Formats: sequence, C-alpha cells, structure tokens
Amino acid sequence: MGSLDSNFSVNSTEFKPLDPEEFRKQAHTMVDFIADYYKNIETYPVLSQAQPGYLRARLPETAPYRPETFETILQDVEKSIIPGITHWLSPKFFAFFPATVSTAAFLGEMLCTCFNSVGFNWLASPAATELEMVVMDWLAHMLKLPKSFMFQGTGGGVIQGTTSDSILCTLVAARNRTLENVGVDNIGKLVVYGSDQTHSTYTKACKLAGIYPRNIRSVPAGSDTCFAMSPVALRKVIDADLAAGLVPLYLCVTVGTTSTTAVDPLEDLADVANDYGVWVHVDAAYGGSACICPEFRHYLDGIELVDSLSLSPHKWLLSYLDCCCLWVKQPGLLVKALSTNPEYLRNKPSESDSVVDYKDWQVGTGRRFKALRLWLVLRSYGIANLQSHIRSDVRMAKMFEGFVKSDPRFELVVPRIFSLVCFRLNPHPGSYPGYLELLNKKLLEWVNSTGGLYMTHTVAGGLYMLRFAVGATLTEECHVVAAWKLIKEGADVLLRSKDAT
Amino acid sequence: MGSLDSNFSVNSTEFKPLDPEEFRKQAHTMVDFIADYYKNIETYPVLSQAQPGYLRARLPETAPYRPETFETILQDVEKSIIPGITHWLSPKFFAFFPATVSTAAFLGEMLCTCFNSVGFNWLASPAATELEMVVMDWLAHMLKLPKSFMFQGTGGGVIQGTTSDSILCTLVAARNRTLENVGVDNIGKLVVYGSDQTHSTYTKACKLAGIYPRNIRSVPAGSDTCFAMSPVALRKVIDADLAAGLVPLYLCVTVGTTSTTAVDPLEDLADVANDYGVWVHVDAAYGGSACICPEFRHYLDGIELVDSLSLSPHKWLLSYLDCCCLWVKQPGLLVKALSTNPEYLRNKPSESDSVVDYKDWQVGTGRRFKALRLWLVLRSYGIANLQSHIRSDVRMAKMFEGFVKSDPRFELVVPRIFSLVCFRLNPHPGSYPGYLELLNKKLLEWVNSTGGLYMTHTVAGGLYMLRFAVGATLTEECHVVAAWKLIKEGADVLLRSKDAT
Repeated sequence: MGSLDSNFSVNSTEFKPLDPEEFRKQAHTMVDFIADYYKNIETYPVLSQAQPGYLRARLPETAPYRPETFETILQDVEKSIIPGITHWLSPKFFAFFPATVSTAAFLGEMLCTCFNSVGFNWLASPAATELEMVVMDWLAHMLKLPKSFMFQGTGGGVIQGTTSDSILCTLVAARNRTLENVGVDNIGKLVVYGSDQTHSTYTKACKLAGIYPRNIRSVPAGSDTCFAMSPVALRKVIDADLAAGLVPLYLCVTVGTTSTTAVDPLEDLADVANDYGVWVHVDAAYGGSACICPEFRHYLDGIELVDSLSLSPHKWLLSYLDCCCLWVKQPGLLVKALSTNPEYLRNKPSESDSVVDYKDWQVGTGRRFKALRLWLVLRSYGIANLQSHIRSDVRMAKMFEGFVKSDPRFELVVPRIFSLVCFRLNPHPGSYPGYLELLNKKLLEWVNSTGGLYMTHTVAGGLYMLRFAVGATLTEECHVVAAWKLIKEGADVLLRSKDAT
Repeated sequence: MGSLDSNFSVNSTEFKPLDPEEFRKQAHTMVDFIADYYKNIETYPVLSQAQPGYLRARLPETAPYRPETFETILQDVEKSIIPGITHWLSPKFFAFFPATVSTAAFLGEMLCTCFNSVGFNWLASPAATELEMVVMDWLAHMLKLPKSFMFQGTGGGVIQGTTSDSILCTLVAARNRTLENVGVDNIGKLVVYGSDQTHSTYTKACKLAGIYPRNIRSVPAGSDTCFAMSPVALRKVIDADLAAGLVPLYLCVTVGTTSTTAVDPLEDLADVANDYGVWVHVDAAYGGSACICPEFRHYLDGIELVDSLSLSPHKWLLSYLDCCCLWVKQPGLLVKALSTNPEYLRNKPSESDSVVDYKDWQVGTGRRFKALRLWLVLRSYGIANLQSHIRSDVRMAKMFEGFVKSDPRFELVVPRIFSLVCFRLNPHPGSYPGYLELLNKKLLEWVNSTGGLYMTHTVAGGLYMLRFAVGATLTEECHVVAAWKLIKEGADVLLRSKDAT
C-alpha cells in the first residue's frame, strides 16, 4: 500500500471521468461486446465449471495505482470473468426460475443509469416518481387488480428490489398497526403464517422484523393438496394461537411456489385470514406474471380481499434484475411505518401532501429511476406480445412434460401449472426412495457437468425431484428438445453403469 | 382493458425480445442519445420545474396492447420525461450529496446488466461472488482498514444497495447475538445509540428490526462540538440505561453527517462502546470515500475497534447508484442472522463451507453482479486518479468557502471538513433568527427557481443554513464561480426588495 503515498504525479485537471466523447466511444465498444456475447452465448457451458477461489488466484491483491486501459479490462472479462459465469441468459438454462430479459429492458436500464436520478422524494426527480406511479397502475390494469390497489383508486404500487423487501415493508406496516392496538410490549405475541412451501425469505423477513422465531408458523402443505396451503389447516392453527393468547398478524399466500409452482387457494385463505383481521400478502413473484393472460387470471381470484401483492417482472416479464412490483391497498399504513422527515429533505410539494415520496414506501432512502425499464418493456412489446411470451414458455414446458410422459423410465412428480416441470427418473416403480434420490442426484450432476444445460432440484413432500424451468428469454423449442435428449442420454449412461443399479 | 381479450392476432414465434442484432442497433442509438444528453446537460434547468401530476396527465391510463416503436418512446423521453427530471449529473447540481458517476462505472453497469447473473450463492455465478470479494478487499486496502475486515484476514465485505440495508443487516446480527444471551423475550430492553445528527434512516432501520421506539437514543450534538457526538455524553446515556435495567446494543458513529458532514470522534466513541460490549457501526456513506487520501485517513483512526463499517461509492467514488460497501469483522454473525437454506438452493460448494453465499449477507435472496461497476472504476482510474478526484472536489469547495468569507453579507455557519460548505446570508449581524431563516429560505427559492443551480438547506443546532455540496462529476471551477455569482445576484435582489428587509 506504499503506492498510496507515492510521488507519482497526477494532473487532476486532466482527469475527466465523464467526458461525453470518451463515453460515446467506449460505450459503443461495449454494446458490440454485449451483442456478440448474446450472439455466441450458446457456445459457453451454462453452469460455470470454475472451482472455488479460481478468481482470487488470478487477480492482484490490491487495486492498481495507475489507470489501466479499457481494452485490458475487456480482455480480462473474457479471460477471467466469463469462465466463472453461470450463464443465466443461455437458452440452455432451465434452473431455479430463469431471469428474463429483453432489449427494451436493457435500453430502459441504460436510461436509468444515464440520468442517475435519485428519487427519494418527488422533488428530487418528479419524473422518476410519477412514471413509477403510472407503470404500476398500468401493470395493475393488466392483472385486472381492483382499483383499491391503484393510484387511480385508493391504493398504489411501488417498485422494490426483491420480494424480501416487499414482504419486510408490508410486514412492518402490519406489525405497527397491530402494536398500536395491543401495545409495543406485546411484540412477542405476534404470529405470522405461511406454508412449508413459502419462500425461505419470508421466514427471514419475519425474523428481521423482530417476530419471535417461535411465532413463525409453517402450515404443512403436502402432495395431497399439490403443495398448496389448506384453508382448513390455517384456521386450526390460528384458532390454536388465539386460544394460547397470541395475536395473529400476517399471512403470506403464494401464487407459484419456488419448489413446485404450487398455487395457494387465495380466496379461501383470505376469507379465513379476514375473519381474524390478519394482514394478507400475496407473493406472486413468479406466477403473478402469467396472470396477464386471461386463462391464468383465475389464480388471482379473491385478490380484492387481500392487503398487498408482490410480483417480480425480473422473473417472467423480461425486465432484468432487480424489479419487484408491490401493490398495497392502504399506502398510508406503509408510509406511517416507513416515513422519515429529516430537515434536509423537507420541501414544499412533500409538505403540501400532494405528492408521493417513495422513500416512505421502502427500506432505504436512495432509489434509482427503475420505472424506465418497465415502461420500455410495456410500450416496446405491448400487452399482446407479453401474453404471447408467457404462452410460448408454457407451451414449451408442456412439450417437455409430453417428453417425460412418453418415456416410461421417467415420471412427473407434480402436476404442471405454469412453465416448470417437476419430474424424476424412476425406471423401476416401487424402488426404495433412497435409491431414487441417489439416482436422480447422479443424473442431475451428469447433465449439469456437461455444460449442455443447467437444471436444479428440489424436495417436496419428502420427494427428491428435478426441476425443469422453461423461460430463459433465448430458449426456443430446439433447446428444449436438445435438453431432453441430453437428459435421456444421462439416464442411459447411468442405467447402464453398475453404480446406479 | 377489453383489449386484453381482443382477437388481435400475434404470432408468438416471431416475438424475439432479445435478438442480438436488433439489440446492437438499438443500443448503439441509445449510446448516442446518452452521450448527447451528457454533452448538453448544462442546457437544462437543474431542478425540474414540473408541477405535481404533470406526467400522469400526459400518459395514457393503460399500457398499449400493440407494440410501439423505439423512436416514439425516445421522443417521449425527450418530451415528457426530461422536463420532469432533476438533473443530478448537471455540473450545476450542488444539492444533498451529489451522486457521482463515470464512464467506467457506466460500462461496468452495462456488463452487469448484460450477464444478468443472479449471485445469491457462489454456484449461481462464481465470478459474481469472487469478484465482489476481491474488490471489497481492494477498497479495504485503499482505506487502510485492518485485515480483520478483509477476506484476506478474518472478516469480509459485501456490496449492499444502501446504507439502510447495511445498518439493518448489522443491527439484526447484533440484536440476535445479544438476544441469545438475554433471551428473546427481552427484545424490549435493547437500546440503540446515535446522535441527533445521525441519518434518519438509522432510526428507521432500528424500528424495522423491532427495537422499541422508546429505546432509540439520540445523543444531542450541538454547535459546541461542531455537531459531532460527545463520548462523555454517550457514556452518561449508556450508564443511565444500564441503571434502568436496559441492555445497550448498538452504536452508529457517523463520518460525515448528512446535514453538515460532521465527523463523530470514532476512536473515543468506540472506546466507550467497547466498555459495554455494544456493537459499533460506522456510517461513512459520504466521508469514508475521502479516506482513500492520506490527509483524510485520520477520520477513520480507531476503526480496528469497531464491528462494521459502511461507505457508499455512489456518493463520492464515481459509481452510479446504488452501491454501498459494508465490511464486517465477524461475517459469521451476519450469516447466522441472515442465512436461509432451502432445498432448492442446496449445492456441494455451499455445503462444503468453502465459499461465500452472499444471500446470507443481505436482506434479499436475488442479487446483481454489482462488483463489476466498482472493479471497472478502480482499474480504469487507479487509486491515483480517484485521490485526485476527491482532492479536486475539496479544492473547489475551499474556493467557494473563500467566496463566502470574502463577502461580508454572508457567513460560514459550520467549519468545512470535506466538500460541503454550510453558509447563510446574514447581512445585518444580530438579526432576529426568524428573519434570517426567512431571508435564506427566500434566497434558496430564488436561486433554485432560476434553474441555474440547485442547492438545498438544513437546520442544525437550531440554525437554518444553506448547503453547497461540491461533487457532481461534471462540475468544474467555472461552475462554482457561476454558482456564487448567481447566489450573490439573488442576495442583491432580495436585499433591494422591501419584502426581505
């Protein structure tokens, strides 16, 4: 670190970190680099084959004292970064839920970065706040949400980073509303509800908000309900809590669970929760996007009964990370829980109460102009293309489902709802579960190590299964066909080898 | 919304949201649009002159059913978005703390978006995790942090979105550690400490984490200490809490407060806190960046005594939003508080404990490949240029300070430390405070309404003052000179008018 204090002379007047013509030149180079990456993305192994620590070994221990050229850095991206990347945008990516993207969203993101508007309150960048209000209402219309969730009505929406943020903010709003009635010293009596299929981040958000771990309920949701939460079971759990002198607070309903895309029965669950004054949040991070198609909209039936809903366009609406849309019926409760009012942010529009200050709808103060991305997606493609994009993914998943059904060595484990197929290799029905798990683990490892596709697994109801999630933006039918061929090849290899039998 | 169900035919096989050649063409257009915006940025009024609701009135109530062209959308950006933008990157922006940017960071952000790697755990994109570990160690070296904060030592760093996230995560780690000793039912006894100059988001984070509002202490920090927290006062408050049977938990020390860039005496405060086993967090969001220069590093003296430190390169290290670096001495405590382990994310490297899974260091699960931005900044400019950039801002602030001192109608209100000058118009010493406040409010309104610069205000120690924050990336000496000229002109106008006297 001696270099920090060295005598190398730098003429500060010459250092211009944002010279428009230099920017223009280098950004054009970067555009070509990225377009070429997208063009050649199929040539990379999907899952990075790097070993832990590979990068640290290649890079110097300290930052350089003198500047390095853009060309050197780009070469290092090729040489050192790309080998360590798991290519989420590869058409052969079928893991987790794919993170969908589009040219329009990329352009929107460039604009967002360009302005670097910090929209903590209205005045700090009126367009950032107002465009967000507009696109949140647009998306609400596309989902046929009631006006009670729109700025055009009595509610409103906000773009959060992730589902975790959405849950944390609404949970704290609910918590504070209830504590006002029961007293802050009763925080230890507040109980929250989800199923054992609810996303792990829900439990984490509850713990962050000071809900006692012992008061976080996971209602079992097994294969008998296709991994959906049972309203009858929920009511029993709530009744038991009430009988124990506890205070039911918050319910998280999932439309499209992460393991198997199970859909909790929203309307019936909300009916139960409403009987007890419990805040109902709907986590539709993945499944919600499909509800812009009339044939899927029924999964949101009863949405007028809930308090808040979140949905992540970065999952299925072509938006790049990170973009989670949250709608609430009573923005006032959110603002009451999250508002700050330091002197240095005071201004006339905020004080006249005529504007929305989004810093009071989220955890942090600073926020980017994220609405641009969604605005460009919605306008560039239109509702028609977005619906057809959802349908195309579902059609490909159906095709894969057909492949699985057509091969007697394989079986579907959970009925397909959206574009995820949960299946397993089960060549000898009646096999010992431990054997099946081992066999499928080996199959997964085999296909992923080829680099020819990337899938992941889950366990639900005690069953180990493989998840084939269609939805990467560049995926076409040929990739699904090739993936199935590779999976079958893996099965052939395994079943031929002694180890597996 | 009837259009949703209309019969307009869309051929889904033709919809390619990420065609590489279409991407190339449109992204090149966008690069030129942005380069031109940067070239012409001075022609826009800095502070948007839009009225509340201006944008909603211009845009349709619902998203279009059919696609619109990129050209149409870009025209709307010009026509409808830009008039509602407060131009944070304008060289005439002197409000809040400027959000600094650079070509290198823009390119890094483009790459981050390009890959759209979701780095929740190591395996999901090894390069994303490992590059973040490397750049966090690089920056730690630049700040001369002890090895106890580095991966090269026993600690480590992570890129969060905002300071709020950094505080929330460390606070919850501290909370859980203490609750393990005193029992979860004693959450109501936990007390947290800051000064009345600590950022408002600190109180918000404490409330989010379930700290009782009555247990959030704001130690008064007045003009006698230049708005820095007093270690003596802190000890008294802690002793009183202990005497009342409460449990001191967490202290937030600020290096560069938002109001006046006051620097809390880190070492002495940490000494006090350590006597009581209180977790010490240093919020150096703004001031920390200056500490890469040897002449400012002493503001971090005593850093080896604290538990965590956060600093936002988006404020002063040319990184664009959002980028907040958090270092912790005991990553294990963070992971213990924030880890999740759902089956569908299980993988061999994570289970072998040989890798970092950053989802366990933050609120959310998903995360972008943010390290690329910082990596490009550090390499493209080198430590030398980054130091000279800090010094150049400080030099311009000193110049403005000189202007203020040279005009007997004005006065400095707080000694300048970094690149913020707190001053006020005070033409008749001994004036009634209410008159001075009104006069300065009018001056602020006058200059901001010209569009020729944007400044903000604060109140500290009961004094209303104007904040002139130098640091927008494009600002050069000529802009500071012009700003001072405009401020003087405003004073002339006001002092000539009857209203003001």
